[in-house]
Amino acid sequence: MSTRPEACLTGMKVLDLTQFEAGPSCTEALAWMGADVVKVENPKAGDPGRTAGGKPGQDAYYFLQYNANKRSLAVDLKSPRGVDLIKQMARHADVFCENFAPGAIERLGLGPDVIRAINPGIIYCQTKGFGAGSPFEKSLAFDMIAQAAGGLMSITGEEDGPPCKPGATIGDTGTGMLMAITVLAAYVRKLRTGEGEHLQLAMQDSILHYIRNSFTYMERTGKPAPRAGSKTVGGGNPPIGVYPCKGGGPNDYVYIYTSRANPEHWNRLLKVMGREDLIGDPNYATPEARTERREEVDAIVAAWTRQHDKHEAMHLVASATIPAGAVMDTMELANDKSFEERGIRQTMQHPVVGPYTMSGWPVRFSGRTPPISTAPLLGQHSEEALADWLGLDREELGKLRRDAVIGG
Amino acid sequence: MSTRPEACLTGMKVLDLTQFEAGPSCTEALAWMGADVVKVENPKAGDPGRTAGGKPGQDAYYFLQYNANKRSLAVDLKSPRGVDLIKQMARHADVFCENFAPGAIERLGLGPDVIRAINPGIIYCQTKGFGAGSPFEKSLAFDMIAQAAGGLMSITGEEDGPPCKPGATIGDTGTGMLMAITVLAAYVRKLRTGEGEHLQLAMQDSILHYIRNSFTYMERTGKPAPRAGSKTVGGGNPPIGVYPCKGGGPNDYVYIYTSRANPEHWNRLLKVMGREDLIGDPNYATPEARTERREEVDAIVAAWTRQHDKHEAMHLVASATIPAGAVMDTMELANDKSFEERGIRQTMQHPVVGPYTMSGWPVRFSGRTPPISTAPLLGQHSEEALADWLGLDREELGKLRRDAVIGG
Repeated sequence: MSTRPEACLTGMKVLDLTQFEAGPSCTEALAWMGADVVKVENPKAGDPGRTAGGKPGQDAYYFLQYNANKRSLAVDLKSPRGVDLIKQMARHADVFCENFAPGAIERLGLGPDVIRAINPGIIYCQTKGFGAGSPFEKSLAFDMIAQAAGGLMSITGEEDGPPCKPGATIGDTGTGMLMAITVLAAYVRKLRTGEGEHLQLAMQDSILHYIRNSFTYMERTGKPAPRAGSKTVGGGNPPIGVYPCKGGGPNDYVYIYTSRANPEHWNRLLKVMGREDLIGDPNYATPEARTERREEVDAIVAAWTRQHDKHEAMHLVASATIPAGAVMDTMELANDKSFEERGIRQTMQHPVVGPYTMSGWPVRFSGRTPPISTAPLLGQHSEEALADWLGLDREELGKLRRDAVIGG
Repeated sequence: MSTRPEACLTGMKVLDLTQFEAGPSCTEALAWMGADVVKVENPKAGDPGRTAGGKPGQDAYYFLQYNANKRSLAVDLKSPRGVDLIKQMARHADVFCENFAPGAIERLGLGPDVIRAINPGIIYCQTKGFGAGSPFEKSLAFDMIAQAAGGLMSITGEEDGPPCKPGATIGDTGTGMLMAITVLAAYVRKLRTGEGEHLQLAMQDSILHYIRNSFTYMERTGKPAPRAGSKTVGGGNPPIGVYPCKGGGPNDYVYIYTSRANPEHWNRLLKVMGREDLIGDPNYATPEARTERREEVDAIVAAWTRQHDKHEAMHLVASATIPAGAVMDTMELANDKSFEERGIRQTMQHPVVGPYTMSGWPVRFSGRTPPISTAPLLGQHSEEALADWLGLDREELGKLRRDAVIGG
């Protein structure tokens, strides 16, 4: 019995015309599950993500992270023979993905009508900033635009401060994940019935899926959900939020959450802090009382957290079965070897970049995460992919290369 | 040819022992794609999400949002006959999902070893706060704990402020989406080979997947990624971020993004702002120059945005092919009828709650999003689900109910 995660989607062929992050994060997820993802790139420079912040002459770490386990086919889509090659590939593909600017794929002659006519069983996927039928459907979008227009920035930031952008790329990777789920569901149907599908997803619309809790607040109060700093939308009942720890650095904080649903959290916390004297004190005994005296409660907790470093504070609070988490920064996470031991982060050897470590698919299959392989060099698999999918022979491939229809 | 999204996963049976959000968001996605999701709940109160912020006597909006399109089977898991019923259901299930506190499912006698021995072809899924093998694997976690310990809060907030919690529930729904992808991939393999799987996912580990861009910053600079307010991690080149608009309310801002990769964005923006006089001015001509004079650049842009409301500003900037987005609040999104016209938000009629509107699955299948049906009442489908999956007859069901093994 195989427990190789990469074997799950064996046989699934994905023709991947995506770039940057929203599209590539989707097809990368499929690649990690074992799909054969052939990334189609312009032979001159490839996915613009390849140069997003990287050193000259090598692929950027940005690109490496979103294109692991894929193959690269460099084809000139300005040449009719290049476009024809992609149409031939599309005949053999189960899935076609693109996230170009609105209208671009149609201008290339590879729009949904064209490709679905060639292969009615294909699952044709389009990711854009704004939805078809939205007043902004022709507008450009990047992750931060979707986060603004999708409501997420309005609920992120300090209570009295301006809207803030979450550090996570929910507009990009968040969107990619919703598309990946949908592609797989459509693929299950295709395996059963042979049907294709036309899937469309907008980044703005995806954000709504990730901020449903804030709609809960609105439904309850009739008001737009506000910003709440480190607290939950609506504020929650104290203690809740980040508390300062020893060290005083920008991330020397511990998050402590006492649940309204579990009144024991507060009493347990008082014990951890050596403040048994306050157990049962009516000034603090109920969530309502603590909310009324929020500043006092926060001061009591902070007086204790300041005496401990964040790891110690997390350990002490979490060990007493109260939800707690040290605020970890990216360097601390990268240096924490337990992520590598558990296969969440893995180290690869890239032929140009050398060794590098990245986060992979975090789900374990019988204890093991999918292995990561390095992102492809531009056009690294041009011949191989065309030979595999179309059965082109050495002579035909040589001619395509000499005529600069393919590159790499 | 069917274009009904809900038909994609026809025949897939999910036994759903999840609660709150991380688990339910996963199984709800499967339900929206057409899986038969039977939610197993305690007959006394059900999923604690049912009372999370709701009015007395009715299911909370929180619950409604994460449990659409499911059936509810209320079974007493403290009774051996109740546990046995779940084991019988597990024989017929393709997928088993749980996200109880660490160790709880094993104590119920429904752990992975037990269920996989009964049904080796089952896909058994566990979602926890921290990963098996992590020093915190036995600790409780909620969304905000994962956001703290997974690095996301360290990169969210004002540059000189404390760590901030994004308003999106990446720790919960973000995790649920990664599990949904993995379940579907494993299901594709199961359809082909009959193999089952044991899937495990930690909320802390999931966060790492959504903050990969911040690791790009770290890789480039050797420093932990900082907070950057409304700008991108690392700051980006100005203009970037939210700019204040007419009105002066908490969300009267427009996000403007000029890309380093496209120098024309700045020149186009100058034209939109009627500042053609600055085109080519060496003080602002390059991203480097603008970064050096960030305050001046921001002041120039804000002087213009303050003259327009955010919608107008977005329209003017986006129409000039520069990425822009008004900062929308949740009320504005809810009141924008284009989301309902496009099927992104839908209105339902609940037998107790009455009419309510919520966000559904935002992906369109040939132009149409999956229809939402109301979340089930507690135990609404107890008899129906047992009859469907196990073929129990009216007499057997009546006895189970009389003996309080099932409820609803």
